[in-house]
Amino acid sequence: MTPSTNTFTERLNRAAGIVEASLQALLSDKPGPGEIARPDRLMAAMRHGALGGGKRLRPFLTIETARLLGQEGEGPLRAGCAVELLHCYSLVHDDLPSMDDDDLRRGRPTVHKAFDEATAILVGDALQTLAFEVLADPATDRDPAIRSDLVLGLARASGPGGMVGGQLLDLAAEGRYGAAELSEIDVRQLQMMKTGAILTFSVEAGAILGRADPAARENLVNYGRALGAAFQVADDILDRESSSEALGKRTGKDLEKGKATLVDLLGLEGARRECELLVESAHVSLEGFGPEADTLREAVRFVVERQV
Amino acid sequence: MTPSTNTFTERLNRAAGIVEASLQALLSDKPGPGEIARPDRLMAAMRHGALGGGKRLRPFLTIETARLLGQEGEGPLRAGCAVELLHCYSLVHDDLPSMDDDDLRRGRPTVHKAFDEATAILVGDALQTLAFEVLADPATDRDPAIRSDLVLGLARASGPGGMVGGQLLDLAAEGRYGAAELSEIDVRQLQMMKTGAILTFSVEAGAILGRADPAARENLVNYGRALGAAFQVADDILDRESSSEALGKRTGKDLEKGKATLVDLLGLEGARRECELLVESAHVSLEGFGPEADTLREAVRFVVERQV
Repeated sequence: MTPSTNTFTERLNRAAGIVEASLQALLSDKPGPGEIARPDRLMAAMRHGALGGGKRLRPFLTIETARLLGQEGEGPLRAGCAVELLHCYSLVHDDLPSMDDDDLRRGRPTVHKAFDEATAILVGDALQTLAFEVLADPATDRDPAIRSDLVLGLARASGPGGMVGGQLLDLAAEGRYGAAELSEIDVRQLQMMKTGAILTFSVEAGAILGRADPAARENLVNYGRALGAAFQVADDILDRESSSEALGKRTGKDLEKGKATLVDLLGLEGARRECELLVESAHVSLEGFGPEADTLREAVRFVVERQV
Repeated sequence: MTPSTNTFTERLNRAAGIVEASLQALLSDKPGPGEIARPDRLMAAMRHGALGGGKRLRPFLTIETARLLGQEGEGPLRAGCAVELLHCYSLVHDDLPSMDDDDLRRGRPTVHKAFDEATAILVGDALQTLAFEVLADPATDRDPAIRSDLVLGLARASGPGGMVGGQLLDLAAEGRYGAAELSEIDVRQLQMMKTGAILTFSVEAGAILGRADPAARENLVNYGRALGAAFQVADDILDRESSSEALGKRTGKDLEKGKATLVDLLGLEGARRECELLVESAHVSLEGFGPEADTLREAVRFVVERQV
């Protein structure tokens, strides 16, 4: 392991460590200001759902985008943690028996397995709430206009017209609510909503905190969109190719449920080509930035080449 | 029905009509700014969970508190709707099979009965998100500091140290997670978290929008706390006394589940006395206000005397 070849992974892992510590502090048993008491069981289950795993790619994107614009420290870290809390809530609810019915997540029992279903529902609910609380707190940015922008952006990315809407389309794609024959356009829209919107917002949050001008913000959002799309195509490829051991969850699952993915529609080779085009597009969006944007450039390459 | 005797009910009903129309607009199929698409099924289920029922007491409190401080119009209406969306999300999730397992709500099938369990989980998730989106939107108040305050307040009232924490304590009180013997203090804390915090915030939201000075805000929050506590004791009394027909839901349910309520701990007469003390306390908190606070004074009386 030579330092020069794994600088990106090192940065990612270092950020993950800082994010983990910050999430731990946010999920402590001690009631915050204005709170009455935090039940032990709920907090333990929230920690189970949010700590000890994941690449923390979303907070990394927020932190790196803000850094690119000269903004470092507590603000980007907190905003990144908020996005991660939102992401973790969606995983806890997606794993529920009536949803994707998963027993394992990152090789550990899912929250409803380790605790129970009612607790898992409340854990997801409370992780979502905490995400918005973290963004609205003055510790995230002293300018309330910035905080409001962050709340609004995360809400739009994760609400009925974003992530949650995408999750419903995903359930519909299994044929639960009548026959579902998805076109390429449908699959792209579903993925843009289910995973793309939050990944894009991870980048946009950094742009908001970094006071990006409208042109820079638009370029960064376009970068985030390309990265989000690349992430999902890479996920579809992984789902088709990987072994259960490597991912720590059952795979080939989309296939098993009869859900169409871009791999079905474009073939494995077509999907790989699409990934390359998206990497290219992400790089084009960053053309206005110098070498200080190299970490974001490497991030999109990482996303398409990851094996987990 | 003479107009003079039912002015309060008329005001409450008129506000409920305006709130209903506003919620309807917020829950339209048309994607909002920054949203990709809103799936029909999700929106229909969200409307099922949020429209066509309820006294809309929470938005009424927000609107009336803001009015008391000279603030009327779109802002208090939107903030009230946000609190109501949050309340509706909690009802949809509380009704789920793994939670309270209720088939009926206000005499109609609950969301998971009318749709399905996965949809109901997503409906609750999206109603929560929408609540925060509505508060952070510039249409609610042009001052971003006010909007941030509203988001922070709602999050704290509904997160792990508020409503959701209270809901977990409520499940624990059924003995799900080991024997549960609740003291009077435990029951009071559970109720303050589960229903009191959001009712209190309904009032505080009006105080925030109305730019209440610290002393007035504190008095209004104290009023909200007393009203919230009175609401819950009245609920416990109703649960013990009412017929199933009148409430549109099964009753004596707490008794059936072995959950301790204040009626168990204080007796019916003791609980009624407690209600009167809380009405008194709410009135004392409003002493600094003139006749313009009469609607809030009547609201607490309404809360303890309601039959549904």
